Amino acid sequence: MKDYFHERPGSVPGTLIFDENTSPAQLALFDWDGMETQTFEDIEPEACTPYLESDSVSWIDVRGLGDGQFWQQMGKVFDLHPLLLEDLVNTPQRPKVEEYDDRLVIISRLVVPRDNKPGFDSQQIGFVLTANYLLTVRERLDLDLRDSFEPVRERLRANKLGRCSVDYLAYTLIDAAIDGFFPVLEQYGERLAHLEEEVVAEPTPHTLQKIYQLRRELLELRRAIWPQRSVVNLLSRTGNDPIVSTDVRLYLRHCYDHVLQVLEMVETYRELASGLMDVYLSAVSNKTNEVMKVLTVISTIFIPLTFLVGVYGMNFNPESSPWNMPELNWYWGYPVFWAVTLVIAMGSAIFFWRRGWFETTSGFEED
Amino acid sequence: MKDYFHERPGSVPGTLIFDENTSPAQLALFDWDGMETQTFEDIEPEACTPYLESDSVSWIDVRGLGDGQFWQQMGKVFDLHPLLLEDLVNTPQRPKVEEYDDRLVIISRLVVPRDNKPGFDSQQIGFVLTANYLLTVRERLDLDLRDSFEPVRERLRANKLGRCSVDYLAYTLIDAAIDGFFPVLEQYGERLAHLEEEVVAEPTPHTLQKIYQLRRELLELRRAIWPQRSVVNLLSRTGNDPIVSTDVRLYLRHCYDHVLQVLEMVETYRELASGLMDVYLSAVSNKTNEVMKVLTVISTIFIPLTFLVGVYGMNFNPESSPWNMPELNWYWGYPVFWAVTLVIAMGSAIFFWRRGWFETTSGFEED
Amino acid sequence: MKDYFHERPGSVPGTLIFDENTSPAQLALFDWDGMETQTFEDIEPEACTPYLESDSVSWIDVRGLGDGQFWQQMGKVFDLHPLLLEDLVNTPQRPKVEEYDDRLVIISRLVVPRDNKPGFDSQQIGFVLTANYLLTVRERLDLDLRDSFEPVRERLRANKLGRCSVDYLAYTLIDAAIDGFFPVLEQYGERLAHLEEEVVAEPTPHTLQKIYQLRRELLELRRAIWPQRSVVNLLSRTGNDPIVSTDVRLYLRHCYDHVLQVLEMVETYRELASGLMDVYLSAVSNKTNEVMKVLTVISTIFIPLTFLVGVYGMNFNPESSPWNMPELNWYWGYPVFWAVTLVIAMGSAIFFWRRGWFETTSGFEED
Amino acid sequence: MKDYFHERPGSVPGTLIFDENTSPAQLALFDWDGMETQTFEDIEPEACTPYLESDSVSWIDVRGLGDGQFWQQMGKVFDLHPLLLEDLVNTPQRPKVEEYDDRLVIISRLVVPRDNKPGFDSQQIGFVLTANYLLTVRERLDLDLRDSFEPVRERLRANKLGRCSVDYLAYTLIDAAIDGFFPVLEQYGERLAHLEEEVVAEPTPHTLQKIYQLRRELLELRRAIWPQRSVVNLLSRTGNDPIVSTDVRLYLRHCYDHVLQVLEMVETYRELASGLMDVYLSAVSNKTNEVMKVLTVISTIFIPLTFLVGVYGMNFNPESSPWNMPELNWYWGYPVFWAVTLVIAMGSAIFFWRRGWFETTSGFEED
Amino acid sequence: MKDYFHERPGSVPGTLIFDENTSPAQLALFDWDGMETQTFEDIEPEACTPYLESDSVSWIDVRGLGDGQFWQQMGKVFDLHPLLLEDLVNTPQRPKVEEYDDRLVIISRLVVPRDNKPGFDSQQIGFVLTANYLLTVRERLDLDLRDSFEPVRERLRANKLGRCSVDYLAYTLIDAAIDGFFPVLEQYGERLAHLEEEVVAEPTPHTLQKIYQLRRELLELRRAIWPQRSVVNLLSRTGNDPIVSTDVRLYLRHCYDHVLQVLEMVETYRELASGLMDVYLSAVSNKTNEVMKVLTVISTIFIPLTFLVGVYGMNFNPESSPWNMPELNWYWGYPVFWAVTLVIAMGSAIFFWRRGWFETTSGFEED
Repeated sequence: MKDYFHERPGSVPGTLIFDENTSPAQLALFDWDGMETQTFEDIEPEACTPYLESDSVSWIDVRGLGDGQFWQQMGKVFDLHPLLLEDLVNTPQRPKVEEYDDRLVIISRLVVPRDNKPGFDSQQIGFVLTANYLLTVRERLDLDLRDSFEPVRERLRANKLGRCSVDYLAYTLIDAAIDGFFPVLEQYGERLAHLEEEVVAEPTPHTLQKIYQLRRELLELRRAIWPQRSVVNLLSRTGNDPIVSTDVRLYLRHCYDHVLQVLEMVETYRELASGLMDVYLSAVSNKTNEVMKVLTVISTIFIPLTFLVGVYGMNFNPESSPWNMPELNWYWGYPVFWAVTLVIAMGSAIFFWRRGWFETTSGFEED
Repeated sequence: MKDYFHERPGSVPGTLIFDENTSPAQLALFDWDGMETQTFEDIEPEACTPYLESDSVSWIDVRGLGDGQFWQQMGKVFDLHPLLLEDLVNTPQRPKVEEYDDRLVIISRLVVPRDNKPGFDSQQIGFVLTANYLLTVRERLDLDLRDSFEPVRERLRANKLGRCSVDYLAYTLIDAAIDGFFPVLEQYGERLAHLEEEVVAEPTPHTLQKIYQLRRELLELRRAIWPQRSVVNLLSRTGNDPIVSTDVRLYLRHCYDHVLQVLEMVETYRELASGLMDVYLSAVSNKTNEVMKVLTVISTIFIPLTFLVGVYGMNFNPESSPWNMPELNWYWGYPVFWAVTLVIAMGSAIFFWRRGWFETTSGFEED
Repeated sequence: MKDYFHERPGSVPGTLIFDENTSPAQLALFDWDGMETQTFEDIEPEACTPYLESDSVSWIDVRGLGDGQFWQQMGKVFDLHPLLLEDLVNTPQRPKVEEYDDRLVIISRLVVPRDNKPGFDSQQIGFVLTANYLLTVRERLDLDLRDSFEPVRERLRANKLGRCSVDYLAYTLIDAAIDGFFPVLEQYGERLAHLEEEVVAEPTPHTLQKIYQLRRELLELRRAIWPQRSVVNLLSRTGNDPIVSTDVRLYLRHCYDHVLQVLEMVETYRELASGLMDVYLSAVSNKTNEVMKVLTVISTIFIPLTFLVGVYGMNFNPESSPWNMPELNWYWGYPVFWAVTLVIAMGSAIFFWRRGWFETTSGFEED
Repeated sequence: MKDYFHERPGSVPGTLIFDENTSPAQLALFDWDGMETQTFEDIEPEACTPYLESDSVSWIDVRGLGDGQFWQQMGKVFDLHPLLLEDLVNTPQRPKVEEYDDRLVIISRLVVPRDNKPGFDSQQIGFVLTANYLLTVRERLDLDLRDSFEPVRERLRANKLGRCSVDYLAYTLIDAAIDGFFPVLEQYGERLAHLEEEVVAEPTPHTLQKIYQLRRELLELRRAIWPQRSVVNLLSRTGNDPIVSTDVRLYLRHCYDHVLQVLEMVETYRELASGLMDVYLSAVSNKTNEVMKVLTVISTIFIPLTFLVGVYGMNFNPESSPWNMPELNWYWGYPVFWAVTLVIAMGSAIFFWRRGWFETTSGFEED
Repeated sequence: MKDYFHERPGSVPGTLIFDENTSPAQLALFDWDGMETQTFEDIEPEACTPYLESDSVSWIDVRGLGDGQFWQQMGKVFDLHPLLLEDLVNTPQRPKVEEYDDRLVIISRLVVPRDNKPGFDSQQIGFVLTANYLLTVRERLDLDLRDSFEPVRERLRANKLGRCSVDYLAYTLIDAAIDGFFPVLEQYGERLAHLEEEVVAEPTPHTLQKIYQLRRELLELRRAIWPQRSVVNLLSRTGNDPIVSTDVRLYLRHCYDHVLQVLEMVETYRELASGLMDVYLSAVSNKTNEVMKVLTVISTIFIPLTFLVGVYGMNFNPESSPWNMPELNWYWGYPVFWAVTLVIAMGSAIFFWRRGWFETTSGFEED
């Protein structure tokens, strides 16, 4: 996910900017009169004109951002304000709701977990909602089959949408967008659980890097869901807006609860991840402590003994004086030396045993 | 406790989803006319119909989420909106209050400490409150005897409820649900006190793991109680709602104070747990420091002495020169060596004694 | 201070619960007609009846929570709602203000520093305020002479209260309760200053334990003062309440400033205590660093020398070859060895001196 | 960027203070009647008078703060309140919007990334907006060609502004100012990514210094953008202000979204930078741990062996007793010694191998 | 600065309490009729009476808190409410604005940097503002010449105040009080910059102590400025107060911006100081790491060599067996030993060189 969109400072407002590798735009039209659905795939914007004013529910679904020419046509057919066009095309914009005369514009985000690797893909979804039709614009063509709208398209084709009104269709799509956050959340819950085990079992610097990466992605996820809170809240509350009926607002209130659930989980995961950081740091300290203990035990046992053997390696001349190292000539000298050595070594070992230094403490025990 | 409920993104709103291991639903009906209580256990939804419109206080108590067929019947008998059904069955939902025409729907949570191990069990409880009857739906059958509703059922059977109105009955149950948080809190207070002692007495990495686990569970507890704050506040304040009488609102205000107390304690425990983390980290640092001191004392005493004995183990030929190690032939050579050795050892020991390195500082002293 | 009160979940609301070691209740009545004060100590509740309706200012002061029978009488004499009784007796409740018809109920807390040891004692104080009388209920009998109400009783006995109205009396007591926080604060200021010196002069793990304990008590203090903020704010602002006159509200606004001062100081102390934690941790790191330096200096000086003496302790046979350790037979061999030794030792020492390793850095210098 | 402006306490309000190295002021006038633009560069304030009352859109653009005499003229020509003058000249002021009778005064900030080194330059920009003309005052002359206003001047010269009204011109400039934050943000995103790699690849104390510097600059950036939030929000919302038309407010709402995006990114970067600090600290701990392991492995292998060779360097006299070091005379004595030595060394090595101490863990692996 | 004022709990409200070392009170009167200023220094309160009702602007300036008798006179002359007297005399009170009938009471604080040492002096300043006169009360006499009011007194004496109204005079003084925070801020900015260099160049535990002290003082500064925010905001906004004219409110809005600037800088400095703490801790870790490296390099090079020389110090009898240390009799034995020694030493050195252990990393490099 790009972090933000920005045009060249000072350029004309409403300038549409297209990335070099933008997908071409594909336009599909679903027209439903409550009985049956007509589907037109890959058509030109102009082909939509007859359906826009009809009483049936029309959903114009654009995937891929296409090029300037395409949007010039779109602007003409759907009568789109230049700023509105900018919101739809210059992605990513911040999620928001805006009223333009007789239409509502909603900018939201779709997320979908990556297929084979951690992380999620994210794209902007724009809604233009009038009394007669719903126009949706999604950024990317390649995520299409994995994203949350495909099931809705299928339900529409199968004539199973449930209620024949444009606002209900819009709700269904917004609900699908929000529900799309849950599988992503699930992935993070699993990664966090996995990291908890890793920190316990065998913490490496790589573990830390993974925790940092997790925190970074959760920040990104939070940035994607946070503004949606006020979007859905606004939609579910505004007074006498003629576009969204009271009935559909009831459904949107449910949607709002789901946004709150997602937000609460993201915050919970962030707190857990930051707690894991502390656990990791303490695991490293414990490992250093263990290494130190090994060194200290070995050194403390052998250093005094090394001194002792050094003593009897000295060359004081026993012939110069009866006081000079008479031990060297004792009958039991060498065995006594070994006895003393063993006593010292055992003593040190018992001393460390009593302090609990031989217990391995680097691993977490399971509850 | 599952973290959140989520259906497949894009699926039809109001779809009821049943876990494979959901308990079958058991329905009980208590009908009280102020004089005596009629109790019907394990009945079919249809059997409730005659009591729903009567003037007596009827409590329909459903335990276990059952299956789709059961809820189809329920929906018909109690005239439940599909979204309302979703709130009751697709658990866990976020605690909330919603008005549907002539009824209040309250989603709340019941918690109960685990029997033999740390932690708590948690289940969703849904209330549907009308002027004539109260319907409650609890998720799990197995927690029944331990949860906070059993005493209310007993009081009802014993005709000791106190006041004959549906809203007062609802209040009694909500109050019981909130009061159920206190035994759980008590458990955490005890675990925290236990951990404080453990960090002081013998901190192991296992201690840290316990602190992390405690923090994790407190986060979960917070997530369970936090939304109830606005639920109970809303119930105790809403203006002229005909379902909850002003009198019962007075009782709910008390309930609200208890929610605040629970919240404050959870926050306090979280702060204490995070302070304990710091204490633990510092305990580990102190232990490393102690290990270092042992190593340093031993090394500093013996390393110079080992050098000294090495000196007199050298083989400079005393015969080549009078300057070559004449000490080896001195009469008092060896005794003087021991005297020097003792002086050095004692000097080092006194040096370290003065710096306080022999004091054990790893344990906390009691106040 | 108990953290919270809780009855058995599901029990009848308004049930009064008495601890086994609750003090018996002592009731005193002060009746003041602006000219002189009549005092009755240790009387029965019924004896208050004649004074409740009189125009004089009557203060009924109950100390100790007593037993059920006592409160049954109280309830009858003062016409107390069951929930109100619960607030007074089932301590601790959260500080709050409630209106019951013609009376105000205020729950607040009294704190008093412990006599000979750190910490504070805390008890609940409940006010029932009507136009004609003031009823106060304090939890504990044993704190009586040390708490902040004794001076007010004395002023009343000495006829020096200042103004003859029930609301002014209530203000005087609330003000005394809030002012009672300052001596406790002062104690914490002193303990903090003492800990700052200790962390600087000789940090031990016991210091850390004291900081943790201080933070814990400050959390408790915060929990006691925080809800009083909205209590006093509410009292000083509510519009046309007939019980508290505009004039007394002016005094309560002063009281509110004091609550804010207490809160600000508690927060400041908490931040300082958490900063001290960091200073302590860094002191421990510094000490480890110092220990390491001692070890490193000693080892670095003597380990190469020990190698050197080892070299000349080798037994290569000088007779097999002129290349085999000819040094051993040199005339100046041994003196040269000592010269080399001294040069190496001095070199190392100068190296460490230059790096500043001989400076003691474990203690803080005073500004 | 200076942190704040302050005059000598107690001096006369409205005193204009000029830095010694303030740039001289350059005044340019753009007058546009919707058809063509007249441009006057480097003119005197008085020369503007005829254009101020005309119907055409006049933009008076002052660069450099100049001296007292210049502002005296400005004050007279444009009828500026002394406090307004202070806001324009005594920089930096806090970004804000103020209404003075028939004019709006907006204080904002322009930022621009530094050319060849990290960081950004920042200058104050003041707007005085009336129905007929727009006066802008920028602090510095030297940033002119790099800042975000140059493209607007070019568009104006090329007659491509788009809409002929003063408020639209003001919006264009405010929008350019806000958009100017994005290139700066981009620079911080890149520096952060670079630091993430550095912490992973080769963390040095210099890395830490860079992180600290980054956090410091992000704090400064936040201080520059934070007050603009309420500036733009205020401008885009105020009710029936005759100066800013409803139409232009729509554009300003877009601008507001951009401010929010900048703010969110700054906060995100700050959180990431503070997470990097933790990663750095843990990297240092890991390095210490590695050093310790090397020392411990070497010591643990060789210290016991050094004891062993010391044993056979002792001079116990084999002639005094058959028990005195008979090994020295064994036929296989020396080879057996080497065998034992190898066994001990291999044993230690295997022991450490098993514990994983030979694995290098100091570097982060890539995902 | 004392942290708070507190009387004995339970004492009579409005009791004035005087410290033993309170300065005597000095009263000065400035009376200005717009043309010229009459100045009376060191007069009695009664001498002010004739000027209080006159139309001219009278400023009664009291320095030093004096004694009870003085304030009794003041109370009589200025008709001061007992609570108002308490606010003025029992310092420090929390900054606030209160309305008493026809007068405004403002409690604020004056700060001034200490002369020769770090830190700031702080005193309470109370304003009593009526339509005809302004009474100001400052706590301390000794700060007089250094504080921000002296320049205002001088301007008044020189007849350069600018506008002849009591509210404008009050604004001038409040503005001077706020502007007085900037030189203090400047001092903290400098101390912080100095500490940043010190942490980089040579961090000692004394550095840490200085950072802690800085954080402590910034907390105190924040406590002094924070409540002023709402004081000045209240003054600049209140609707139709007859005492402060709309015109002067415009000036006070400027003042409010300055308060916000001070607050933002204090918060910024606090964040920077807390970031410095982390840098310091990491510097200590780095130093430990360096010490460890020295120890490890020395030990790793010499410990194996010491083993080697020990080997050839053994006394295995070459005569018992051809296998017993034949090396000792080799012709090139001793030179080969040195060759091996050099190879091992060089090998270790190269190994450590490659790992970068010889690079000094304890100092920060400059950008």
